[in-house]
Amino acid sequence: MTFIEKLRARWRDANSLLCVGLDPDPAKFPDRFVNDEDALFAFCRDIADATAEYACAFKPQIAYFAAHNDGEAQLQRLIAHLNGAHPDVPVILDAKRGDIGSTAQQYAREAFERFGADAVTLNPYMGRDSADPFLQYNDRGCVFLCHTSNPGARDFQELMVDGAPLYQHIARTIAGEWNGDGNCALVVGATFPEELKVIRGLIGEMPLLIPGVGAQGGDVEAVVRNGKTADGTGLMINSSRGILYAARGEGYAEAAADAARSLRDQINRYR
Amino acid sequence: MTFIEKLRARWRDANSLLCVGLDPDPAKFPDRFVNDEDALFAFCRDIADATAEYACAFKPQIAYFAAHNDGEAQLQRLIAHLNGAHPDVPVILDAKRGDIGSTAQQYAREAFERFGADAVTLNPYMGRDSADPFLQYNDRGCVFLCHTSNPGARDFQELMVDGAPLYQHIARTIAGEWNGDGNCALVVGATFPEELKVIRGLIGEMPLLIPGVGAQGGDVEAVVRNGKTADGTGLMINSSRGILYAARGEGYAEAAADAARSLRDQINRYR
Repeated sequence: MTFIEKLRARWRDANSLLCVGLDPDPAKFPDRFVNDEDALFAFCRDIADATAEYACAFKPQIAYFAAHNDGEAQLQRLIAHLNGAHPDVPVILDAKRGDIGSTAQQYAREAFERFGADAVTLNPYMGRDSADPFLQYNDRGCVFLCHTSNPGARDFQELMVDGAPLYQHIARTIAGEWNGDGNCALVVGATFPEELKVIRGLIGEMPLLIPGVGAQGGDVEAVVRNGKTADGTGLMINSSRGILYAARGEGYAEAAADAARSLRDQINRYR
Repeated sequence: MTFIEKLRARWRDANSLLCVGLDPDPAKFPDRFVNDEDALFAFCRDIADATAEYACAFKPQIAYFAAHNDGEAQLQRLIAHLNGAHPDVPVILDAKRGDIGSTAQQYAREAFERFGADAVTLNPYMGRDSADPFLQYNDRGCVFLCHTSNPGARDFQELMVDGAPLYQHIARTIAGEWNGDGNCALVVGATFPEELKVIRGLIGEMPLLIPGVGAQGGDVEAVVRNGKTADGTGLMINSSRGILYAARGEGYAEAAADAARSLRDQINRYR
């Protein structure tokens, strides 16, 4: 089963467009994880186990592991746990890689073979040959940055090229030229909901990964109404901090489950 | 001493603009490294020790480590060795990171604290707030992608924005707005030597990291003549495969030293 097939099945079976982002910051962990050498793994495992039934995808952010010695070993164990305990929930490794072809082959090996992710986020700035080594894993997903959720998205992504912003040109190129195997998706920030409608019009049914709801201020209703496909799917709406740190004490897992269920239900009201 | 000061001192003292790229691919290693669990570290150490006197910088490519279990531990040991044995040669971690601010903080910690690099390569697509956590380490270097050496550089980097290619707009923005602490540099591929002259005119004395000489086909003379600053420096001309795999047998370290000296001398003829 390919990433896209797994995602579509999960949208349907879990009745959810919610992506649970796993960005483990030890400074925000409950006290029980102080001095726990496996805290990155154990905290994310607990959150994932508590929220899986409400999730269409998990998205571990590799930077939060890579900042620590031994972080990659914990990320490996985490993804192995996710694949074992929640085999129906696709795992998107958020890594935003992008490099020349020979180096991109190494990064593809990192994401898909070493870590066993179903999909990976990628930066398209270096062009087609930087994407090919990932695209060639045609059972996996390639989720390209298009219009990101942060303030700096305005600096270059919105520069006008032939009368349209650069990010729209990138969306058209990926949808029209890079998606021959149907394994592409795009990152479009929830903080620019009007632009979501334009992008949906450019890319057909391609899935969108939407960061920026919650801590970054995106509007759920506008995101769903503007971004969904005709069948009311097409979206992976990510929440990381709002779920992970919903409560900081011993009830962290239950609070995360409540936050995930609540956001899933909020999303579903507008489908 | 900042990265830029260290680089300028090294250009002068080693009389070299050569950057030695460390992209360890076990399939190309000499036989002695078969079944060596520390081969990534040991091979790069041998190459670095043999070429250090000809190098203005070392550039380990993190993807070649990240493709392997335990790769990061070997990269840590390698950079610790470089910093200890060759303290005058700055180390640029080639990682091409780029993410929202909170995540970029984690990546900055990865590059500068965990791995102890003097500088890191970064992807500017996500804009200023994705760069700030790196820029704030004002003793370290931030080397931003501008016009890369691969064929896909044409796909988006050359799109026309207000009458000039996108990559020139990015060069102007970084030189004019992001370089307040003087710790920025740009990546410009050797495969587009004519464009180097334009970029040098836009950015003043800012250092340029130039990949694409050798295996990728860039022309050394055109690169030096078009890219150098008035004092005959300003460049880190990278060679990876041409040095690392100059010989595949037992004479690999001597062959690497010969290739490095030869390229350094070739570069110096045109300064």
